[in-house]
This record gives sequence, structure tokens and C-alpha cells, in this order.
Amino acid sequence: MKVVIIGGGAAGISTASNIRRYDEDIEITVITLEEKVAYSPCAIPYVLSGEVEDFEDIVMHEPEDYLEKDIKIVTRAEVLEVTGSENKLKYRLKNRYMSIEKEISYDYLVIATGATSFIPPMERTSLKGVFKIRTIEDGVEIKNWANKSSAAVVVGAGLIGLETAYGLKKLGLDVTVTEMLPQIIPRSLDSDMAKIVQEYLENEGIKTILGHPIEKIVGEKQVEKAVVGDEVIDADMVIMATGIRPQIKLAEMAGCEIGRWAIRVNEKMQTSIPNIYAVGDCVEVFDAITRQTIQSPLGTTAVRQGKIAARNITGVKAEFKPVLNAMVSKVGALEFGAVGSTKAGAMQNGMDVIAGKSRALTKARYYPGAKRIDVKMICTLKGRIIGCQIVAEERVAERVDTMSLVISLGLTCSELSTMEFSYAPPLSMVIDPIVLAAEDACEKLKKIGK
Amino acid sequence: MKVVIIGGGAAGISTASNIRRYDEDIEITVITLEEKVAYSPCAIPYVLSGEVEDFEDIVMHEPEDYLEKDIKIVTRAEVLEVTGSENKLKYRLKNRYMSIEKEISYDYLVIATGATSFIPPMERTSLKGVFKIRTIEDGVEIKNWANKSSAAVVVGAGLIGLETAYGLKKLGLDVTVTEMLPQIIPRSLDSDMAKIVQEYLENEGIKTILGHPIEKIVGEKQVEKAVVGDEVIDADMVIMATGIRPQIKLAEMAGCEIGRWAIRVNEKMQTSIPNIYAVGDCVEVFDAITRQTIQSPLGTTAVRQGKIAARNITGVKAEFKPVLNAMVSKVGALEFGAVGSTKAGAMQNGMDVIAGKSRALTKARYYPGAKRIDVKMICTLKGRIIGCQIVAEERVAERVDTMSLVISLGLTCSELSTMEFSYAPPLSMVIDPIVLAAEDACEKLKKIGK
Repeated sequence: MKVVIIGGGAAGISTASNIRRYDEDIEITVITLEEKVAYSPCAIPYVLSGEVEDFEDIVMHEPEDYLEKDIKIVTRAEVLEVTGSENKLKYRLKNRYMSIEKEISYDYLVIATGATSFIPPMERTSLKGVFKIRTIEDGVEIKNWANKSSAAVVVGAGLIGLETAYGLKKLGLDVTVTEMLPQIIPRSLDSDMAKIVQEYLENEGIKTILGHPIEKIVGEKQVEKAVVGDEVIDADMVIMATGIRPQIKLAEMAGCEIGRWAIRVNEKMQTSIPNIYAVGDCVEVFDAITRQTIQSPLGTTAVRQGKIAARNITGVKAEFKPVLNAMVSKVGALEFGAVGSTKAGAMQNGMDVIAGKSRALTKARYYPGAKRIDVKMICTLKGRIIGCQIVAEERVAERVDTMSLVISLGLTCSELSTMEFSYAPPLSMVIDPIVLAAEDACEKLKKIGK
Repeated sequence: MKVVIIGGGAAGISTASNIRRYDEDIEITVITLEEKVAYSPCAIPYVLSGEVEDFEDIVMHEPEDYLEKDIKIVTRAEVLEVTGSENKLKYRLKNRYMSIEKEISYDYLVIATGATSFIPPMERTSLKGVFKIRTIEDGVEIKNWANKSSAAVVVGAGLIGLETAYGLKKLGLDVTVTEMLPQIIPRSLDSDMAKIVQEYLENEGIKTILGHPIEKIVGEKQVEKAVVGDEVIDADMVIMATGIRPQIKLAEMAGCEIGRWAIRVNEKMQTSIPNIYAVGDCVEVFDAITRQTIQSPLGTTAVRQGKIAARNITGVKAEFKPVLNAMVSKVGALEFGAVGSTKAGAMQNGMDVIAGKSRALTKARYYPGAKRIDVKMICTLKGRIIGCQIVAEERVAERVDTMSLVISLGLTCSELSTMEFSYAPPLSMVIDPIVLAAEDACEKLKKIGK
């Protein structure tokens, strides 16, 4: 049996490795446009900030490493044509010496083409000094340009925007982050929790302009200024962290059905064509809370989807479940994370919810170095927990994971408030901040007679 | 209504505070032998090590602070007699100026008398330089004595023993830990996981002698040597960290039924006498895995039991569930934690189990400062997870909490392996070590055809 995978990112490589894990004999070929495979795009901002030394460090494996697993990787290859009816595709191998077309047939095709940066339609986005941030090449170019710059504007205050802003600040630039919406991290945090992160960033010297889209990029040969609302900001560089668009061209060409946002797949990660699967940023998924289709452009989602596709292709039943978009980020010393629905998001979806909150410490009160931790927990009026947001200078990520489990298993705030947590003075409080937030939610429900 | 609580530790104070939370009018009196209330005995080793500066720091509140909450605390008072049939008790107030007897009646009595150190029956345990470790006074005496000592033997390699050993090492002493059983932390860790902690301790210069009880304490006016197996160890001090015995005398006097280990209570924390409740180290609980009665002398158990007793006393239904004994500890830079059953424990109880393991990193591979993390996950042959042990230099505690939830909700390793976890390079790996251990468990089950 022959499986061809288009795309060498987390989703494609996860599919390939998992197929090999479940089956020793399947012939596996990964075709990718890029020169590198299996690198971690989430790590690019940390190379900018210097926390990771070199872009080479974030490449986890070279293509040759996969030969050991008997996985063939074809790099710098552009797929030109997929003929779904004939189970074959055509691609072009291209380097400085040659450009040749090849054909390959498959029993199963896996589309893991990912996404590209979305650049809003405006003038001068191709001016020197304007960057997108998606690939290692983008990272290298940004770092080189930043080294001779003194001021940057980052457009978009999502995760990648904020992480990049912090990276550029560490490189010594004046940094302004602009966001069209009236708060930072609008997708994952409510405005009260986002405010805590914003204050941290401002203390670190990063300016924020909220509630205004970027209106203009000004410059002749290269970027000189950016105009946002009433403000004209001097800048040597503009980073467009304005979201992504799934790459669905090849899937369309193959005849796969496209959903509202991206390639439509069933719970097996199978497209409308039975022997074509799709995984990663190029597919749409269901939101576990709202049951609507959404994008979930997260490394973890890609890796789990690869695993599910691999199981189904090798004949092991497995289902990809609706997502909670569990996320976490670290900017400087501050960690913040979220899972499930925000309060604002739930209300937009017509749900009646309340929010329990706690402000506590990450260690026993008397233990040196205890940090403040803020937890916000969103519950339905029946007490079912549907979302949680956490901000602190340590110990956020695993609490997000705990809450991911709590939410996906449908626990109520009352159930959570009597669950068993571990305790040691250097590591936690005797009553966990999560439990305190759950108790607060219970009390709020009681007050409104629920 | 009048509630009298005997004991000012975590369980007693948690009961008092929670009663006040649910009811503004109940008259609450806490009677305690000690001078301090609401201090954290778990913190004593960290004051020894110098990580917490002073014993005063670990007293969270003074008795007077509780007057604000309208909770009356009677300190240095010994309860002499409980007359269950008449709902009253007699106690003696004693300080250097006076000794008077008083009587108090109650509608509900809560026994939170805790436990005392168990000292094995042997000669010279009352010699100068031999210490138990339970109260702040013990801590103060140990620190004073240690300041003029050069070598210590700690008897018992449970949590408190190891934490104390590390504290004494930090004070500059030569430290030997001895344990009757052939491994350290026998209650919570399997021997392979315990070995990792033992190696860390030995690297820190702490000697361990396993598989031998202490045979003899040698000395005239004060401790000079300890004999363990074949070894004679020079020592200026011996710390007996040899376990605890619940304080059940008053409960017996009141006519409450005693179980196998301690006071018997139902799921409401009610003793056999309906208006007498008992909470904390003086009661026995059910083990969630084996369903047998056990002791659970943990701060978190005490606090949750106080909450459950308070709810039931104030007319809110609540059940204390069987425990998983989620625990975590930090010795030097190393954290270790466990929840549920060990593999050895499960096998002793006649269960057929397998163990999935992973050795991974706490951050992305390329991220500076990533630490090794070891996870062991115990599953039944049907895949249900019944225990987990984790050792690493960071991020153990919250993972133990996640696993506490996983186990109490009855998840299988297959279910866990596709759950949604959060990811960011400075905070985690794209596939969590917990998921890797769950996958390993699934593969082991597959190999034996389950």
C-alpha cells in the first residue's frame, strides 16, 4: 500500500510517523515545498528574543533522519496537480540546477498543506521592511532586518503577534502592537484577563494601540511610518501578524468538499473523497462548546489529527473529537493560557453564563517567590464548566491541561470544587486557585438562585 | 446553634471557616492544645533548609484573626472529657499563671484532634538529640540542635523524612537516611521511580541505607551513634520520621466507633454518633482504587474534609469521596508526585496491571533549560488508569492534579492518549509526557492481546 502526504509540517510528519508506528510495510512519501521538515513554527518568536539561540535549533530533524523510519521525504517539491479520480499527482522538483516534473500514484493521499499568512488588502505591503511571520525564512529575514532597525510595529495582538513583539523588544527595538479589536488576545481571553497581560507588556516597554486597524504603511524605498487610528508611528519595520488562510487549492483541485473555513473532514479526518484525508491548518474542525465549525491552527491539533488519520488509514478506528483550543503562551516571564469558551464568546453564541474568578498565589503564602495567579472560569447556569483562562508567572500550562480535561468531561463547578489536588508549600496552595475559582462560580450561581 | 471543634490544625480550621462561610449565625468555638493555629506542618522542613526564613512565617493567622470571622479560638486548652450523651465537654485552660477547668455544651461537636508522631518501641528514644518532627516546637528544637551538630540520621524515608534530610543537609550536616523497606518513598512510588529520587539525593550528598530498621541509638547524655543493619553511624542527632498515630482518645471517650486505623466516619464525615463529626488525620478514609480503609494524612484531605463536614452541619448535602492520595514534594530542585495506586500496591491487592512509561522533557527539545521528566502510569488490563507517578525538576504538581482527575473519572489510557493538551515551546512538548506514557501503556496492552 502507498500513502502520499502533501506537506512536511507538524500535521504531515505526525501522520507519517504514526502510520509507520502502526504498520511496518506501508510505503510512505512526504512531498513538501520547503527545504526543512518538522520544525516548530511556534518557536520562531523565541529565536527572535534570543531565548533560543539559532533558527537551526528549532529544526527537530533533517529530512534524511526519516529514512531510518523508512519514510521518504521529497523537499522543495511543488505539487502541480492532483487527479483524485486516478489516484495520482504530479509535482515539480526544483532547485538551482534543475526543474523536473514527476508523477506519483497513491492508495491514500493525505493533504497537510497548512496555511499561509493572511495580509489585509492595503497598499505598500510589499515594501521592504514589511514582513509576514510564518516560516523559518520569515524569521531569518525579520531578525536580519531588526538588527539594523530601531522601531517596529506589529499588526495583530494574537499569540504570534505578542510573542514577536516581545522578541523584537528584546532585540532592542521600540515596539508598538496594534489591534483592530478593543483588546489583546481577543480569541482566547476575555477583556479583564487580557488587561493583565497588556499591563505586563506595557511594563516591559511595549506600547499597545487597541480598537484601530492599521490604515496606512508609509515609505518610499522601505517602511518609514505606520498610521493606526490618529497615530503616526515611526517604524523601520512592520510585522503583519494578521492571521492565516488555509491552503485549500490542491484539495479543491482533487475535488474535495470545502466547508465554511477550510477543507471539510469527518471525524476520521477523511475528506469527501474516501481515500483522501486532510489534517492540520488546512482543515476545519468543530468547536466542542458551540458545535460550530472553526479553525484550530495549533500544533497540538495538527499532531493529534495526524495520529487519528494514521490510525484510520491503517485500519484502527479512531475519532478526532471537537476541539477546546487549549492554548498557552509565554511572553517574557508571563504565562497565559485558555481553554474552551470565553465569557464574551459564549454570550455571543447566545449562552447564559456566569464567571467564577480567583486571584491567589502559585505557592504557599509564606514561601519565597510565590507569584500571583488569576483564574477565570466560565460556567453555564447549570454549573457546567465551558471555559477557563489563567494568567500567572508560572504553572499555567498544566492547569490549562487539567481544565481541558474538566471541560471535555463535562464537570460542574460544584464537582470540581471537591476534587483531589496535590499540595506542597513550594509548589502550590493547599486550596488550588482552580478550586477557588470553582467555589466562586458556585457562590455566584447560588446568589442568582441556580 | 453551637458548634465546638476540638483541634486547631488544617482540618479544624477548615471546618470552622467553612461553617462561617455557609452560615453567619452559628456560634463556633475551636479548642486547641497548641498556642498557634492554622500553621502548615508541611512547611517545617523548608524552614530547616532555609528556603523559608523563619518558623513565624509559616503561621498563617494568629488566633485573634479569627475573631473577625466571629470564630472563637481557645488556645492551650486540653479537653479532659467528652460526654456524648449530654452534648458537653470539659477542658482545662492552662498557662504559667493558672490552671482552670471549664465546661462547654454543643449542638455539634467536630473532632479534629489530628495525629502524633509514632516512635518505634526501642531504647533511648528520649535521649537528648532524638527528635520527632510534627509541630513547630519540634522544628524549632531541631533547628537549634542542628546548629551545634555535625551529623544526623533521619529514620524513615517517607516525604517528611526526605524533606527533613535535605533541610539538615542544607544546614551543613552529614546526613544519612535509613529506611526499613528496600526503597525510599515506599507508600507513593514504585521502586524504579523511587530510584531516580534516591540518585538525586545521593548526588546532593545525602546517604541512604535501605532495607534495615534502626536497631540501636547509642549515647550517654546525648545521641552519639545510631546502629542500622551492619552500620554504625556517628550522629549528634536522630530524627524519627517513622509515621504517625491518629489521636482517637477523645473520640473513644465520647463513644464514637473506631475503625481499623482511626475514627470511623461516613461520607458526610459523621461518626457513629450523629451530632459528632470527625475530620483530618484522626479519621480513616476509603482508598478509591482498593476500596479498603486507609489513612490519608495530607493537608489537602484535611481541608476537603473540613469543607464537607461544614456543609453537612449547615444543612448542605455533600459527600467526601474515596481518596487517591494525590501528593507532591520538592526536595532541593527535584519534584516528585504520585496519585492513585503504585504498580506494586496494585499487585499486592491482587490486581492485574501493566505500566506505561515515558522519559521526555519539560519544554521543547531545543528550548534552553528543558529538564528530564519521567512518568509511570499504571493501568488495569482493560486500560483503566489507576495510578501515576511523576519525577522531574519542574512542572510535576499540576500534572499530578491532571492525573488525579483522570483516575477519579475512570479514563482509559486510550482515551487519555487523544485528549487535548496545551503547548508552547518554553512550557511543554507538543506531545505531553503524560500522553507518551498513555501511548506506551496502550502498546503494552496491545502486545499482550488486550
